[in-house]
Amino acid sequence: MKAAVLYAKRDLRVEERPQPSPTGTQVLIRVRAVGVCGSDVHYYTEMRIGDQLITKPQAVGHEFAGEVAAVGSKVEHFKVGDRICVEPGLSCGKCRQCREGRPNCCPNVIFYGTPPVEGSLQEFVLADQEQCTLLPAGMSFAEAAMLEPLQVGVHAFNLVPCVPGDWVAIVGAGSIGLSCLAMVRAAGATRIIVTDKLDYRLALAKKLGATHTVNVEREDALAAVKKLTDGQGADVVYEATNSVKGLPQAVALARIAGRVAAIGIPPVDEIPLPASFPRRKQLTVQFIRRSAHSIRQALELVATGKIDVKPWITHRFPLARVKEAFDLVDAYGDGVLKAVIEM
Amino acid sequence: MKAAVLYAKRDLRVEERPQPSPTGTQVLIRVRAVGVCGSDVHYYTEMRIGDQLITKPQAVGHEFAGEVAAVGSKVEHFKVGDRICVEPGLSCGKCRQCREGRPNCCPNVIFYGTPPVEGSLQEFVLADQEQCTLLPAGMSFAEAAMLEPLQVGVHAFNLVPCVPGDWVAIVGAGSIGLSCLAMVRAAGATRIIVTDKLDYRLALAKKLGATHTVNVEREDALAAVKKLTDGQGADVVYEATNSVKGLPQAVALARIAGRVAAIGIPPVDEIPLPASFPRRKQLTVQFIRRSAHSIRQALELVATGKIDVKPWITHRFPLARVKEAFDLVDAYGDGVLKAVIEM
Amino acid sequence: MKAAVLYAKRDLRVEERPQPSPTGTQVLIRVRAVGVCGSDVHYYTEMRIGDQLITKPQAVGHEFAGEVAAVGSKVEHFKVGDRICVEPGLSCGKCRQCREGRPNCCPNVIFYGTPPVEGSLQEFVLADQEQCTLLPAGMSFAEAAMLEPLQVGVHAFNLVPCVPGDWVAIVGAGSIGLSCLAMVRAAGATRIIVTDKLDYRLALAKKLGATHTVNVEREDALAAVKKLTDGQGADVVYEATNSVKGLPQAVALARIAGRVAAIGIPPVDEIPLPASFPRRKQLTVQFIRRSAHSIRQALELVATGKIDVKPWITHRFPLARVKEAFDLVDAYGDGVLKAVIEM
Amino acid sequence: MKAAVLYAKRDLRVEERPQPSPTGTQVLIRVRAVGVCGSDVHYYTEMRIGDQLITKPQAVGHEFAGEVAAVGSKVEHFKVGDRICVEPGLSCGKCRQCREGRPNCCPNVIFYGTPPVEGSLQEFVLADQEQCTLLPAGMSFAEAAMLEPLQVGVHAFNLVPCVPGDWVAIVGAGSIGLSCLAMVRAAGATRIIVTDKLDYRLALAKKLGATHTVNVEREDALAAVKKLTDGQGADVVYEATNSVKGLPQAVALARIAGRVAAIGIPPVDEIPLPASFPRRKQLTVQFIRRSAHSIRQALELVATGKIDVKPWITHRFPLARVKEAFDLVDAYGDGVLKAVIEM
Repeated sequence: MKAAVLYAKRDLRVEERPQPSPTGTQVLIRVRAVGVCGSDVHYYTEMRIGDQLITKPQAVGHEFAGEVAAVGSKVEHFKVGDRICVEPGLSCGKCRQCREGRPNCCPNVIFYGTPPVEGSLQEFVLADQEQCTLLPAGMSFAEAAMLEPLQVGVHAFNLVPCVPGDWVAIVGAGSIGLSCLAMVRAAGATRIIVTDKLDYRLALAKKLGATHTVNVEREDALAAVKKLTDGQGADVVYEATNSVKGLPQAVALARIAGRVAAIGIPPVDEIPLPASFPRRKQLTVQFIRRSAHSIRQALELVATGKIDVKPWITHRFPLARVKEAFDLVDAYGDGVLKAVIEM
Repeated sequence: MKAAVLYAKRDLRVEERPQPSPTGTQVLIRVRAVGVCGSDVHYYTEMRIGDQLITKPQAVGHEFAGEVAAVGSKVEHFKVGDRICVEPGLSCGKCRQCREGRPNCCPNVIFYGTPPVEGSLQEFVLADQEQCTLLPAGMSFAEAAMLEPLQVGVHAFNLVPCVPGDWVAIVGAGSIGLSCLAMVRAAGATRIIVTDKLDYRLALAKKLGATHTVNVEREDALAAVKKLTDGQGADVVYEATNSVKGLPQAVALARIAGRVAAIGIPPVDEIPLPASFPRRKQLTVQFIRRSAHSIRQALELVATGKIDVKPWITHRFPLARVKEAFDLVDAYGDGVLKAVIEM
Repeated sequence: MKAAVLYAKRDLRVEERPQPSPTGTQVLIRVRAVGVCGSDVHYYTEMRIGDQLITKPQAVGHEFAGEVAAVGSKVEHFKVGDRICVEPGLSCGKCRQCREGRPNCCPNVIFYGTPPVEGSLQEFVLADQEQCTLLPAGMSFAEAAMLEPLQVGVHAFNLVPCVPGDWVAIVGAGSIGLSCLAMVRAAGATRIIVTDKLDYRLALAKKLGATHTVNVEREDALAAVKKLTDGQGADVVYEATNSVKGLPQAVALARIAGRVAAIGIPPVDEIPLPASFPRRKQLTVQFIRRSAHSIRQALELVATGKIDVKPWITHRFPLARVKEAFDLVDAYGDGVLKAVIEM
Repeated sequence: MKAAVLYAKRDLRVEERPQPSPTGTQVLIRVRAVGVCGSDVHYYTEMRIGDQLITKPQAVGHEFAGEVAAVGSKVEHFKVGDRICVEPGLSCGKCRQCREGRPNCCPNVIFYGTPPVEGSLQEFVLADQEQCTLLPAGMSFAEAAMLEPLQVGVHAFNLVPCVPGDWVAIVGAGSIGLSCLAMVRAAGATRIIVTDKLDYRLALAKKLGATHTVNVEREDALAAVKKLTDGQGADVVYEATNSVKGLPQAVALARIAGRVAAIGIPPVDEIPLPASFPRRKQLTVQFIRRSAHSIRQALELVATGKIDVKPWITHRFPLARVKEAFDLVDAYGDGVLKAVIEM
């Protein structure tokens, strides 16, 4: 089988590997679609995210869907040919974090594409049956691959929810920002202000339900949000940039007693947080780690039509052109939001 | 001016009264539309709700909107001619309940139509300016009168919220049940099962966004809900009947670790609550008292089109025919959901 | 080895059984102390709790501690001779309840002494290593056996906490009521009113930190609590009786916007819940199911001296006299609170 | 009467002023004890806190207690001679923040000593009756003046509570850090690690219930806390320094999924917040603003002996020597924790 293996910075090769075999409760999956995530590209350009280093060649990728190709002897709920999406994290179920309902914080979690665990940009991968969920008939594999980035928004929303009638700001209109947008729109927010520096992303946000957009290169976002919220600021703010400016801006945009979800991963060691007004506004800042195995909630929302993730997919590539896809995403080239590798 | 005054059980008279004058921060309102609430009818038929007794003739009614007719000397934000909706409760702002954010539980609250406070079924009433909110241009007075029953659903939702993708059951399809329906639909619930015994109400619920309806006279609601929730039960249940059977059914319909909002006011002293499964399912039962001054949130949702309350209004009467309206609502006659008195 | 096996109502026999052997991650425990729980006695007198029936002879008991006698090949953290306490429930770690942090609600849980699972009133039992925790040097086995009833209070408290300065009522002064007392006292409640009908239990509650006690056979508990709370009612109420009167009383004792933890297991099908004032007070009633694997928190509190469970142990019996212990507990005889079987 | 009036940086003069008279619901208070707060000293040395500037001479101070000297015509609950403590903030009771239970965030709040509002370092001041609470017989005025700094800890605790058995870190052992210490100790925390750079403050913390102390000038606080928490970090961290290093350290000390209360007011514009691990640990950072009118809860805790604030008072001065007191507190001189001006 073929796999996209990262050897060094920007050295991503498609090469042959032996096909694995499932045992016990494992399912062998014929991968059909893999989304290219910003974190995948981060490894591609830096060989690291923070202190997580890629030290030997490995496959990357973790947003994916496919077909069951074979099953282990103890698999109960799946059979060959089933169309499935896959929760990328397999947590231990026994540690304190798991017991208390935070499988995303499990220190023993096995997560596709996070070194040293192999990723899903391979023609076949193994998963435990508990990571798998059947897809409904009408959902394409590419669409199903979007459930993983959607669930980041699902998880952020579940920790920092809004109620119908709330006013929301979203800082950053990448796929995570758009997953937050999808959630707050589904949840009845009545003013949704999305900021970014790329007009094509703001245009997509507008199309997908933002009531207002602000290009931070041309406008003062704080002034704009104040104006759009009758001088109050946003009830809830989702920070979904990978910029060092994201969190300072997010806390500025929140109203008194507002809540901020900090999701983005800026490539810096320190963020200069304003010292005074978070305290004077008595803000709550909730940092968000990945997603708490909420792919079933994401699936429910897409399957029922509450959320449409298809517009996120701006580019499709075959596996052979995977490097091209990574370079495109890295450069924000050609109006790219989400590139999907189809196999 | 004219007022609808309740003298005794089913003795509701339209009579002349002197028109009041505003002082200080008071606003005089020319009432234009008043919704007939189940609780108003309760007083009409029983002269009491629990230990709240009507002992001398008084006007009833509390769901209303109108125009500013005059203002007191300290009124700052309103002028004659302004179209407004009115929060029916005026709480003290100083007691423990107020300080802790529960103005609806304020023991000093003054609430239209709750004895001995006069109600809003009068051509003119006084309100404090803090109870008033401007209406947007396109909203009719009848529609604005629906904001009060809507805010009961708003308050119940705020205390017992659901998230996008949740499965919800609503027990009772009267105006409170429909206000819960409006909220959970706006909040992204993907399965919404509404039960009632009246087909015309269920038909209205279906039209307004229920994904499934169950007539409890013909179907076993528990079996139906189990089937519609893959055997699990509902994540959240809103009990909005005035029947002694409502709460027992609501706890039955909830899934393990589900949450139940108990809103309805059954005309009994005791409710036979099942002893075992609420504990084995570790349910949370949140009792709901009126609404926490959330009329602005209700207004935001209607003004932005997230919620449409116009279909609730099934009948309109002039003040002269107010008794007819009460009898109609009491009898569930002629497909009535909400009757509005227009002046 | 010997085991206490329940054959029929009040037919509890000590008999010989083969000793089990541990495999994989299992630990074989030489049981040294077992507390007699009200639920054990419920099976003893009724052969059932609700729809959980004992249909063939089995050992009962689930509050216990002992020594590691042997370990399976995959056990990592324990060795022969270790002194341990044991979490009685082993949940699956994979279902929705487990994933969301409610292992106590896991439908796949295996719980000692709940039919058809064998109980801990045996000289040797098996446990998974994840159920076991090392005991500190100074803690006796009998004391350690009290960690299980203590953790019911821990779990109830975690779901329905109080803060320092709160006023608390506890309905019922059995071991669960006393575990709630231990928690709220440790948590800084400044008025703690305990009600029961048995004076010796109230005396024990007083000794263990209740600021006031009320004998419900001689006093009107509602009047007493009103008086002791400046007319307001209790901020938080823990219902820990097995009486049908417990929950109605608990909701009566709570203040406006109070919270009620419903823990007790009354032997009835329905509880007559007051219809009006829970709603008018906007109460929250949280039903409590067992305990969420919180034995480590219980251990921390006892090991640090924050909570003293030794006074709970009023009687000790050897295994040969286990039936005598059950009869004593069933009859509330001889000032019994907690009987411990020592082996 | 005499008043301590701040004219310029370090120019604090005791001068004569006319005595005010109460009207309506106002109470005239003969001030008997005023605590010197860090924020008072901040104004003393800088004439500002952030953008709150003192632009004309005014009295400072807000932690105080005294006797009722006269009452307005509408005062109901107090009479001349009553010994009272005073909530320093008077909020409007009508705005969104007040309605939602956050009087401390009320934009209309009137707060003693915050410009342009006059402070309590005067022989007589006016208060609204709703700000006043009767003192129990045995409580001294100096002790009662400590209720205000205590309530900052009360409020921080109420927003970021811990439960019995939790492990807590407190960054900073000034009076706010000690008020957090008092709360978590009352609330049953079993490990309480307090850090500071001043040994005499750590010694006081140890005396008042800290289980461990760390001098950050000599020890690596992160290493120490890791060691003292079995490698996990603290469940809850209270940041109560006025140092730019406080918040970065607080987030470092928290465990995975830990919670941080950010209370301190550092004299900087930006705090360099670590970018990566707050997100990877999924921390919650709750910023704290003053206290939510929780002086009654503070009083309850001191009156019942749950919390002893007397050891906080290290120095006492007459009003004539108020400047000396401010200089002492500013210099952290002579083992000062809290200086009280007695009149």
